[in-house]
Amino acid sequence: MKILVVNPNTTTSMTTKIGAAARAVARPDTEIVATNSRNGPASIQGFLDVANCVPGLLEEVGRHTDVDAIVVACFDDTGVDAVRTLSSLPVLGIGEAAYHAASMIANKFSVITTLSRSVPGLENNLQRYGLAQKCARVRATEIPVLKLEEGDPATLDRIRSEIRASIEQDHSEAIVLGCAGMADLMAKLSDEFGLPVIDGVAAGVTFAEALVNNKLSTSKIGAYSNS
Amino acid sequence: MKILVVNPNTTTSMTTKIGAAARAVARPDTEIVATNSRNGPASIQGFLDVANCVPGLLEEVGRHTDVDAIVVACFDDTGVDAVRTLSSLPVLGIGEAAYHAASMIANKFSVITTLSRSVPGLENNLQRYGLAQKCARVRATEIPVLKLEEGDPATLDRIRSEIRASIEQDHSEAIVLGCAGMADLMAKLSDEFGLPVIDGVAAGVTFAEALVNNKLSTSKIGAYSNS
Amino acid sequence: MKILVVNPNTTTSMTTKIGAAARAVARPDTEIVATNSRNGPASIQGFLDVANCVPGLLEEVGRHTDVDAIVVACFDDTGVDAVRTLSSLPVLGIGEAAYHAASMIANKFSVITTLSRSVPGLENNLQRYGLAQKCARVRATEIPVLKLEEGDPATLDRIRSEIRASIEQDHSEAIVLGCAGMADLMAKLSDEFGLPVIDGVAAGVTFAEALVNNKLSTSKIGAYSNS
Amino acid sequence: MKILVVNPNTTTSMTTKIGAAARAVARPDTEIVATNSRNGPASIQGFLDVANCVPGLLEEVGRHTDVDAIVVACFDDTGVDAVRTLSSLPVLGIGEAAYHAASMIANKFSVITTLSRSVPGLENNLQRYGLAQKCARVRATEIPVLKLEEGDPATLDRIRSEIRASIEQDHSEAIVLGCAGMADLMAKLSDEFGLPVIDGVAAGVTFAEALVNNKLSTSKIGAYSNS
Amino acid sequence: MKILVVNPNTTTSMTTKIGAAARAVARPDTEIVATNSRNGPASIQGFLDVANCVPGLLEEVGRHTDVDAIVVACFDDTGVDAVRTLSSLPVLGIGEAAYHAASMIANKFSVITTLSRSVPGLENNLQRYGLAQKCARVRATEIPVLKLEEGDPATLDRIRSEIRASIEQDHSEAIVLGCAGMADLMAKLSDEFGLPVIDGVAAGVTFAEALVNNKLSTSKIGAYSNS
Amino acid sequence: MKILVVNPNTTTSMTTKIGAAARAVARPDTEIVATNSRNGPASIQGFLDVANCVPGLLEEVGRHTDVDAIVVACFDDTGVDAVRTLSSLPVLGIGEAAYHAASMIANKFSVITTLSRSVPGLENNLQRYGLAQKCARVRATEIPVLKLEEGDPATLDRIRSEIRASIEQDHSEAIVLGCAGMADLMAKLSDEFGLPVIDGVAAGVTFAEALVNNKLSTSKIGAYSNS
Repeated sequence: MKILVVNPNTTTSMTTKIGAAARAVARPDTEIVATNSRNGPASIQGFLDVANCVPGLLEEVGRHTDVDAIVVACFDDTGVDAVRTLSSLPVLGIGEAAYHAASMIANKFSVITTLSRSVPGLENNLQRYGLAQKCARVRATEIPVLKLEEGDPATLDRIRSEIRASIEQDHSEAIVLGCAGMADLMAKLSDEFGLPVIDGVAAGVTFAEALVNNKLSTSKIGAYSNS
Repeated sequence: MKILVVNPNTTTSMTTKIGAAARAVARPDTEIVATNSRNGPASIQGFLDVANCVPGLLEEVGRHTDVDAIVVACFDDTGVDAVRTLSSLPVLGIGEAAYHAASMIANKFSVITTLSRSVPGLENNLQRYGLAQKCARVRATEIPVLKLEEGDPATLDRIRSEIRASIEQDHSEAIVLGCAGMADLMAKLSDEFGLPVIDGVAAGVTFAEALVNNKLSTSKIGAYSNS
Repeated sequence: MKILVVNPNTTTSMTTKIGAAARAVARPDTEIVATNSRNGPASIQGFLDVANCVPGLLEEVGRHTDVDAIVVACFDDTGVDAVRTLSSLPVLGIGEAAYHAASMIANKFSVITTLSRSVPGLENNLQRYGLAQKCARVRATEIPVLKLEEGDPATLDRIRSEIRASIEQDHSEAIVLGCAGMADLMAKLSDEFGLPVIDGVAAGVTFAEALVNNKLSTSKIGAYSNS
Repeated sequence: MKILVVNPNTTTSMTTKIGAAARAVARPDTEIVATNSRNGPASIQGFLDVANCVPGLLEEVGRHTDVDAIVVACFDDTGVDAVRTLSSLPVLGIGEAAYHAASMIANKFSVITTLSRSVPGLENNLQRYGLAQKCARVRATEIPVLKLEEGDPATLDRIRSEIRASIEQDHSEAIVLGCAGMADLMAKLSDEFGLPVIDGVAAGVTFAEALVNNKLSTSKIGAYSNS
Repeated sequence: MKILVVNPNTTTSMTTKIGAAARAVARPDTEIVATNSRNGPASIQGFLDVANCVPGLLEEVGRHTDVDAIVVACFDDTGVDAVRTLSSLPVLGIGEAAYHAASMIANKFSVITTLSRSVPGLENNLQRYGLAQKCARVRATEIPVLKLEEGDPATLDRIRSEIRASIEQDHSEAIVLGCAGMADLMAKLSDEFGLPVIDGVAAGVTFAEALVNNKLSTSKIGAYSNS
Repeated sequence: MKILVVNPNTTTSMTTKIGAAARAVARPDTEIVATNSRNGPASIQGFLDVANCVPGLLEEVGRHTDVDAIVVACFDDTGVDAVRTLSSLPVLGIGEAAYHAASMIANKFSVITTLSRSVPGLENNLQRYGLAQKCARVRATEIPVLKLEEGDPATLDRIRSEIRASIEQDHSEAIVLGCAGMADLMAKLSDEFGLPVIDGVAAGVTFAEALVNNKLSTSKIGAYSNS
């Protein structure tokens, strides 16, 4: 099968990282098409970027018609409802996928994200999906998305310190990494802290495979109908 | 990989059906071990059966130590918390798996189950998972679990009539079949009604594959710790 | 004071109707600037239109820098978060304004909107604002937005019949008209049914006046910060 | 138009302050009638005062029959349901008005009130209005209501310290001043802390103007019917 | 022990019926003091009566200082918070007591009350107590409280018809009689319909006995403190 | 009347303590039958013990057919739904009973229990009963259940320190002791801290008496039907 993984920002180094994370978990016979919007914001931080990246995302989705499922690789799940309305394939946001995965393996989880101003959007999503009650807290590291691309060791230490606080203060049993730019950190941090660390890109790709194998696709009656 | 699919009741014809449903969606290199409890109730209907089937389920799980994931094939998700505490593998109930799948492809779904007295247990589960807000209604057909094994056409008509009511009255966009004994009806009913029809066995097996490929397993700190 | 009322679709006959509804309630010394997006969908029905109209809306907002408050005249409250991030003025969606008004004068209200596929978006908004618990039901008339522009008497009868059902079946005490295109019907229907009928354009304009007179504006720390 | 602003306690210095706050935001052609109960408690702190002040409030409301809207100027919104049942005018409690205003300009707010024993009543109101989910926390200063009348600088410092904690610990984006006796502090504190500070008297008066201009009044079917 | 059962309306025939219901369940060594307010409304229907009966209730409570527990015998639980603040005894409203009893013996219950305009107050109470999720529906019979005193057979038939609807439509497993004036019907209707029928007076008295025997009384720190 | 109080673990010293706590509050004419499971875990800590103790509990219940009510003396309320389905008597879990009692005498309470891994089960119960909104927090002392049997003074100090934190940090007005093994501490700690301290065994027994005197028993239609 063929899965389209679209990064809705225009930063290609993130797309490369996302593609690698996707391929690392995909089945051998799954082809990953990792791409990004051609126009729009370079990173998605806060409600204005969330809105502004959608047209570019929809255009990019429209360029790939021969795929079996779509993963929107922005942790805000921006545009997911619109893509579901446009398409009749299975469509998953990586935030959504990560929350579902966390709910399957832990009683309570924390999310560790970038800037404070992204927190309310993630909290709104969790509430809407019903999974807010499994989430102890959404924590901001105050690391800008693009800073994650620089490989600065201090960045990783900020994330570590929030994971520690999640365990000690929130009594969380699993950690969700709340940005596609953190996709490469999952295994390392899981080993280090001895609890599941979840990356949304990996969760999104494997759940997309699961839906395709189930022959399940976006319902076209009701919310996502387009006629 | 190897996935244990345990039917926690003792009715082997259901186990056969469950095994077939599991194999129909599993990847070629996934081995399905379909089994059932050796002791316990013949079907699970209501809180007393839910409690009584757990020791047999835990014993059966204990007999299979070389597997990569466990699917508990009872729609009440009975014993799932106990299996998660016993094991350190990924563990999924088929009710839980079906609700998560439905939430990924539809804005609102209905569950169609067997007897009225099973409804409160399912509603409690939905509330606890947070997914009650995506579920329009849990509908009872008043068909006993074992009646599903008889292949009576009137049985299918009762299910059809509840699907129709889910669409018209509940405005549901997807249907969850709320009993492992309905696992063979998924494709047929989906075609017939033009909306996704979800079977928990299929959802459970493919999500278990996804978790294993993600290297994600039950968290052993907090709720499911066993030391 | 000067209030910008932006219709985020491109149908100018709706903008005219919205402008009239705004001026009918505004104070004599309030200037209403009624305008619409130059590019984007002709009507907003469902998640795809909701996403697609935002860039045009943001552009149009950017053209009017000398106003004191902004009302987004689409009942889906599309783009309101983005406009709040862009601007530091008070910003109100007409859906949001109508729900707040209804909550101040009635214990329970129903919303009467256009197509079924718009219902989930409105329900999501109500849940997010916290006002879902005051809303008995969101009812679809299955009248497309642009059909409202034709003045067909059958259209009004469909709305009447849903108002009647809201009173009798939902025990609603007030009615919210869930589309900017219904802005002209408020007084007529209120008299006819003997209960408050609320139009979001009117509510939005008067609440915007209230916020300006309170010297209250969008908070620029947290969710809507733009630095 | 003419708006009755009733202080349901008998402390006339508070009524004077409330009247001034009301007039500071009212439109030039709005007449404010600021008055208070003739009998009842001198301040309203806790459930016993809340109950005991209602008869005096209802009597006072009954003395003013030529007004267009009623604002109940006690932050507990005591008696608001009863006044709505007695009257057919628009009726607003100042707590309610402040929460609605805060919800329009911020994603999350904190309330800063007087004594701890008033907190549960405010939390109950927020839950009932649905706006608890927008409120990060209700904070007590442990300053008795009447102490606010003394103009002691230490009083203002206690309020300042809770505002600071709201921003740092609760991540609140706006502050609601939870007592009519704080009505004079709004502008000063807003400037000082760089975020919206909301006074319920001002919010109540301007929203009352908005409802009157909308020709919207308390629904007389259902909860507030009096026949 | 001695339990004060106060009817907060002034209709003595109701007080007699309430006293009889209380004595029918009380232990032989429990003395029931059944009394009513001397001033206030003759029946309590809607928010205005709820507010107006409180002063008379508090006065009546103040007249009986040698009791061990207080039951407020109005199904709206009017004044219960105020009585708890005034007193340091255990205090129970009969609505509250009935909902707790129903939650102990059934998964889901319906409430059958008098007029529609009392429904919102009961729904607010259920939400505040947290027990709304156990209540399928609050049903109005449209029988005024005092009509219950007349013993008209048609009255009983209206109640019967709502019980039937609760079972068939709401799938309720127990019925709460939502008015002190229905206290004499409990046994008869329970036998007739084969499910538990709960009267708040009986529940309130026996739970008050339970609290006294537990040496548990209203907490005087926090919400109900009076210093 | 005769009340069966079953300890679902096999530790007889706990059964003795439970029996004493039950007899201390029961009416003189109430006979307490305090017993425990013959087979199963020695203590119940976490989901695995919760599941494993149920068969022994059901067997033990089946040995006592001449009783009037059943109290399940494990704070996790394990097996309560199954016992209700098996029996037609009133059945109360001691966790459930304690939460209801706390809700009747305080606006907000905290629970103080044994190990962290028992917390999620109690939180799930509170959510399901609807009483989570009255519970400020469930606090773990990290004292294993059987350690409570040793009478170590350090144990009591750990409990004291969590009570202090509940009052100061959670603003709780009452304390629920979250383990049957703490049943002997109720009076002492209540005096010491000046707020109600609730033991579930005592609450369970007195509420069972109350239900029996009300002639109220588990509903046999719906969730707990066994035919």
